Amino acid sequence: MNPKSDNITWHPSKLAREDRHARNRHRSCVLWLTGLSASGKSTLAFELEKELHVRGVGSYVLDGDNIRHGLSRDLGFASEDRQENLRRVGEAAKLLVDAGLVVIAAFISPSERDRRMVRSLYQDGDYHEVYVRCSLATCESRDPKGLYAKARSGMLPGFTGIDADYETPERPDLVIDTEAGSVRDSVTALLRYLEGCGCLTADLSRIHSGAHAPSR
Amino acid sequence: MNPKSDNITWHPSKLAREDRHARNRHRSCVLWLTGLSASGKSTLAFELEKELHVRGVGSYVLDGDNIRHGLSRDLGFASEDRQENLRRVGEAAKLLVDAGLVVIAAFISPSERDRRMVRSLYQDGDYHEVYVRCSLATCESRDPKGLYAKARSGMLPGFTGIDADYETPERPDLVIDTEAGSVRDSVTALLRYLEGCGCLTADLSRIHSGAHAPSR
Repeated sequence: MNPKSDNITWHPSKLAREDRHARNRHRSCVLWLTGLSASGKSTLAFELEKELHVRGVGSYVLDGDNIRHGLSRDLGFASEDRQENLRRVGEAAKLLVDAGLVVIAAFISPSERDRRMVRSLYQDGDYHEVYVRCSLATCESRDPKGLYAKARSGMLPGFTGIDADYETPERPDLVIDTEAGSVRDSVTALLRYLEGCGCLTADLSRIHSGAHAPSR
Repeated sequence: MNPKSDNITWHPSKLAREDRHARNRHRSCVLWLTGLSASGKSTLAFELEKELHVRGVGSYVLDGDNIRHGLSRDLGFASEDRQENLRRVGEAAKLLVDAGLVVIAAFISPSERDRRMVRSLYQDGDYHEVYVRCSLATCESRDPKGLYAKARSGMLPGFTGIDADYETPERPDLVIDTEAGSVRDSVTALLRYLEGCGCLTADLSRIHSGAHAPSR
């Protein structure tokens, strides 16, 4: 989709992404956590954020619930609203990634098409899809917010897993099974993954003429 | 405006803003630059970003032009679209501020009502309105993108300053007159302002049990 007007020009920042990485001493990216409600996305996101902070890594959680109090407060839960919600979150996450942060986005994001749309916003290596796997039975037995009970009673039409499909990710970058291990195990796996793709460190060779000198 | 559904709960981050400030060694806030097209907002924003980077301060520019390639690419320039654009930018900036960055938002934002709407999204001390003052005559003589010429010829209906009003800010937190001084003068004034409101340093008394230990 092209912008609605050609009366706009692109103002490049005077800072390169690498300048921010060098300052922060780590790369930036988005981990996109997808999975059923109560599969553990938010719990993992906030625990991972805490662990990254302890390691001096700047990170930020975008959460399916939280974002709807702000950026997407005008949107409902119809299919097109959900898609627009994810598009906005994808764009907001992109700004945060560009600003140098490791972003952890925790959204049910049940549709393969919508997840592909979000992925398409990013350049290679910036977007990492994490499938937070948990059986519907277990999610429903956890039901921390009582949403499954409401959905079963017909109070939440279109609830993912009950009367709307969750499309299992076809090619996730990482699968975390929250039935198979503890929260700590899952966070450790996420940290290892980030380490593996170089997001916990920066290429500091860019720092040559002063601690924080921008490259252009 | 309340969210469209009450089927959402607020997930507080396990990190407090102060934890991020302590890690970054500076506070976070948004500087909202308002002024006519070609008044110098983007130039000041990117120069300030560079200077902040040199000082080790994490910052990020949201730009009136740039954002329309992403978050607001579905919006045009009618009054309600402009308002929605500013609302989204305000919300995106709020996420960046919450993530610990000094955000520099550069938007014409000609309406006092819209600027108040954006301010209302923030808690006290987080939002700082900077009026980038420059006479219409000077802006029109600069005209780096040829937009005033297009507007005068009728090709850009509703162009601020030509056939749409710019409402001078009633109570800006800072006024920068780009006719009265150089870019360097203006950036120095912005840095002094940020220093004055404590955004270039952090209250490090929160760090007591380790370099980056979160407080809860």
